[in-house]
Amino acid sequence: MYWQGHARTDLALERAEIASRQVPGQVPGLDIREQTLDGIKITRVQVMTPEAANQVGKPPGRYFTLECPNLRYRSRETLKEVAELVAREVTELAGLPRKGDVLIVGLGNWQATPDALGPRVVSQLMITRHIRDYIPQELGGRLNPVAAISPGVLGITGMETIDIVRGVVQQIKPELVITVDALAARSTSRLLTTIQVADTGIQPGSGVGNKRPGINYESLGVPVLAIGVPTVVSGAAIAGDVLENYFAKFNPHARATLDSVRDFLSKDLAELMVTTKDIDVEIMEMSKLLAAALNRATQPAISEEEMLDYLQ
Amino acid sequence: MYWQGHARTDLALERAEIASRQVPGQVPGLDIREQTLDGIKITRVQVMTPEAANQVGKPPGRYFTLECPNLRYRSRETLKEVAELVAREVTELAGLPRKGDVLIVGLGNWQATPDALGPRVVSQLMITRHIRDYIPQELGGRLNPVAAISPGVLGITGMETIDIVRGVVQQIKPELVITVDALAARSTSRLLTTIQVADTGIQPGSGVGNKRPGINYESLGVPVLAIGVPTVVSGAAIAGDVLENYFAKFNPHARATLDSVRDFLSKDLAELMVTTKDIDVEIMEMSKLLAAALNRATQPAISEEEMLDYLQ
Amino acid sequence: MYWQGHARTDLALERAEIASRQVPGQVPGLDIREQTLDGIKITRVQVMTPEAANQVGKPPGRYFTLECPNLRYRSRETLKEVAELVAREVTELAGLPRKGDVLIVGLGNWQATPDALGPRVVSQLMITRHIRDYIPQELGGRLNPVAAISPGVLGITGMETIDIVRGVVQQIKPELVITVDALAARSTSRLLTTIQVADTGIQPGSGVGNKRPGINYESLGVPVLAIGVPTVVSGAAIAGDVLENYFAKFNPHARATLDSVRDFLSKDLAELMVTTKDIDVEIMEMSKLLAAALNRATQPAISEEEMLDYLQ
Amino acid sequence: MYWQGHARTDLALERAEIASRQVPGQVPGLDIREQTLDGIKITRVQVMTPEAANQVGKPPGRYFTLECPNLRYRSRETLKEVAELVAREVTELAGLPRKGDVLIVGLGNWQATPDALGPRVVSQLMITRHIRDYIPQELGGRLNPVAAISPGVLGITGMETIDIVRGVVQQIKPELVITVDALAARSTSRLLTTIQVADTGIQPGSGVGNKRPGINYESLGVPVLAIGVPTVVSGAAIAGDVLENYFAKFNPHARATLDSVRDFLSKDLAELMVTTKDIDVEIMEMSKLLAAALNRATQPAISEEEMLDYLQ
Repeated sequence: MYWQGHARTDLALERAEIASRQVPGQVPGLDIREQTLDGIKITRVQVMTPEAANQVGKPPGRYFTLECPNLRYRSRETLKEVAELVAREVTELAGLPRKGDVLIVGLGNWQATPDALGPRVVSQLMITRHIRDYIPQELGGRLNPVAAISPGVLGITGMETIDIVRGVVQQIKPELVITVDALAARSTSRLLTTIQVADTGIQPGSGVGNKRPGINYESLGVPVLAIGVPTVVSGAAIAGDVLENYFAKFNPHARATLDSVRDFLSKDLAELMVTTKDIDVEIMEMSKLLAAALNRATQPAISEEEMLDYLQ
Repeated sequence: MYWQGHARTDLALERAEIASRQVPGQVPGLDIREQTLDGIKITRVQVMTPEAANQVGKPPGRYFTLECPNLRYRSRETLKEVAELVAREVTELAGLPRKGDVLIVGLGNWQATPDALGPRVVSQLMITRHIRDYIPQELGGRLNPVAAISPGVLGITGMETIDIVRGVVQQIKPELVITVDALAARSTSRLLTTIQVADTGIQPGSGVGNKRPGINYESLGVPVLAIGVPTVVSGAAIAGDVLENYFAKFNPHARATLDSVRDFLSKDLAELMVTTKDIDVEIMEMSKLLAAALNRATQPAISEEEMLDYLQ
Repeated sequence: MYWQGHARTDLALERAEIASRQVPGQVPGLDIREQTLDGIKITRVQVMTPEAANQVGKPPGRYFTLECPNLRYRSRETLKEVAELVAREVTELAGLPRKGDVLIVGLGNWQATPDALGPRVVSQLMITRHIRDYIPQELGGRLNPVAAISPGVLGITGMETIDIVRGVVQQIKPELVITVDALAARSTSRLLTTIQVADTGIQPGSGVGNKRPGINYESLGVPVLAIGVPTVVSGAAIAGDVLENYFAKFNPHARATLDSVRDFLSKDLAELMVTTKDIDVEIMEMSKLLAAALNRATQPAISEEEMLDYLQ
Repeated sequence: MYWQGHARTDLALERAEIASRQVPGQVPGLDIREQTLDGIKITRVQVMTPEAANQVGKPPGRYFTLECPNLRYRSRETLKEVAELVAREVTELAGLPRKGDVLIVGLGNWQATPDALGPRVVSQLMITRHIRDYIPQELGGRLNPVAAISPGVLGITGMETIDIVRGVVQQIKPELVITVDALAARSTSRLLTTIQVADTGIQPGSGVGNKRPGINYESLGVPVLAIGVPTVVSGAAIAGDVLENYFAKFNPHARATLDSVRDFLSKDLAELMVTTKDIDVEIMEMSKLLAAALNRATQPAISEEEMLDYLQ
């Protein structure tokens, strides 16, 4: 989760919405497809050209977004259904299963609740890379090798995350890297109800003019699948929301002044984060869901019962 | 920390500000005194009559509020100075030291970061009630008996907090109860920079027409000193802030419509909380500060060095 | 879990074994029945007279002990089977279900791993006392009211645990109290593989000449069911084991000197505890098992699926 | 901390004692010097030849061991004195300060208390590598660059620790690596009272015939200083202690049979660990001590006051 003033959202979906609003007509090179089923909305955004990437502020690639407002109620049925959908998408976008190693990277800071999603997912994964040769035959033949690491954040390690990940990748040479991270969103309704899966890896900040290296094919030499869930909205975004709603409903003629007003009013809020009242519980639930989805996607030959035995 | 729609702030200071704005002229029975020193602002609010209590929405009593924006930078010097000021105020408002037992109650939920302040303070206190008779003479004679408990929250225990506290009070019969709690504020600038000490105990919600029993002299039969620090602002309050700033600066003539507009716009935000980006670290720091202040106030005859030895 | 030199075990089973060894013939007033099924050994010890209580060092009452060495392997099947057996025994010994409140007390220190069993069980219980009147009809009618508390330990609260529990009991007046606690055993083979359920409540130390009040019917005025699991063996007990094995196997004639030798050799070990290498994981697993058993026993009308929804 | 049957201790001091006992006369190539001051015993073991390494079971190099039984009482004065001695030894053995990066590696599993020492130390270090260019001039010129990582253990990452460390080292190219780890000792009196600093790095297991690669100059290409503290003794070692004491005191003539007897009796105990009763608190205290020592050794130009400001 990168906090940067100009990067109000890490969701390709929201960036595409903003870009579409700014440009009359369709953005060329940007493909957006939606479908809704059972109260779950799936949006597939494809950024196809460098121009579209520039417009949207996200690197070219495929972005899958699942929105399920009912996740808030955390019924077991909904959780299972969403985990299944995410597992299916991860399987397809990552070309799973693979015979080679998969390295899963939990990004973020496990000591700061809204940023702890990645490390918490990693702590619940089925890690198998080191045991393949030692376990009972009846399980071993069907296991795929998975390793995982939570590298920590810059302030705690003194090292750029990409340096740690690149070092590990060069040692164990996985076929695929999957990152899990907490995201910032623009809309509060997406907090802990939206899951993004992208085959582009991760680009800190807006991706335009930013010199920090991404965690992606370019920097690692292997495909990187990035899974993210919005856990915070910046205080500044909230100011924008309130004003936008105000102008839309009560003062439509003055709407032109929105941008200048917004910047002025959101300054004080920029150091704040907005999150849900029971963020601690919601992070725990979401980490279980994503761990289940990743275990399913990486170990399709292991039944749910066997997995529970393994993980306890 | 109680989340209630109509209770936008637990700070007497902010309630007094709101009441003063609504009533032209001074609110009768409400006394407010301010002083500023070294960038630390001290406000003493005294609610003297039932009418004033009704107006302000806080029970009659004395409310000390310390505001120190520099707490954000967490220099050791500032932390020490503020701890000293809080210790002095606790000493005075509670009539310390006392020979009888002092029971310190850490309210809130230690599993939810912004609500964990009370339990974290309790975990760092110098607890002495059980050892007075067993420790070396040279320390024992100067020790005052302190006990502490973190009773948990309704959702976790199934019991009203007051029931647990009352039960314990009836067993050990302390001379004084001190509560420590995370508060909701109205203004984001007060998050983790403001400390309130009140000799009124705690009244869940607005105190008007609310049937949940308070933790106070009426319910416990002993004086209750309440220490609180704002750790969250409700999303709805943010909407109010943004609009208020907008009308004040850009649209002063339309200001009359503010209230109706605000209610409409803040509905979606009511389920959200606004807090600081490094709330985990700030709660830890603030809990150390308050524990130090309480240890100093309850054990004035123990030197700082001796305390460090005891607490490690 | 009470650490006392002369109380080498909290298990009635082990105390009965020791008593039986010391007294030639059967101990009068002591009834011991065993059965084994599926590798699970159930022992029912009944202490029927004050004389037997004195001999065994445990108050009169019924003690159920389940020993399942396979718990070490933590297969889901074994965990389920044992949880079911414990639920059944709790149901019978406690006369469940009851219409009145049940208060579950998690004894021990959640900050010290081997002593954290009680608080961890409590954190996974289905707490219902406060919601009965607010939940959907279809669930509400079948729910029994359960409350819970983890009072902490003397060193952290400055108060005897019994004082806190008695205070709470006098406020909410439950029909039944169930305690959960980590125990000390004499035999290392029983660590985390044995579960004791007793209808006698808890008596700190040996119960003979000990003045600390118990948590039991006498002190609370309601029946107290005590559930415990050995998580540690004292270093001194290990010395005894080693020597006993040595004399039995290699030096049977010198066995008479065992006691004097043992005391001499175990002095240095008294400040140590012996536990399993993966105690952190085992405590977590055992707390899940006991929480499941208690949820089942207190809410027999709620299906397992519904419970998962409730507890997430 | 590596658990291996034949490696009963990770302390060079204890291995040297054992080797000296087995070989009549002095072990050639092994130099042992002791001094005692203020109740603190310092032993410097130097393993000078491959033959001595083979005999002792530790690679050639210098091993500093500090034994301070009073650490148990945790007086601030003792803690400070020991931290100062460790800082001085680290400074000398590691040739500090250095202009290049120092990478500190916290080995072990932070989820298992006795094995969490390394990760806990790392969480309290002054990490500076990433901020040197951004901080105030008056501090910046005196700061040396320190980075740190807690790589986790094989069972959690699926990767050998050395692979992760080597990967990171190849990326950031530090001048020096310092590891911190919990150790197994042979003697219970050394638990949490002994600190070993070695310039040899870490060799899993006994170092003889073991194929797992060490974390040392050979595998990393930079000097590796290893700091370790015994936190557990294996159950098997306890059996040995008890018997040795028995034979020494009560049965000196039969002492020859000790070894065969010991192996027989310790089998059941091999899966157990022996540790102190308040291991949770002792690990916390020891991690503070080591972090203070490392901060002092790596940042000699920063005063204690400045450090507290930085670390809070």
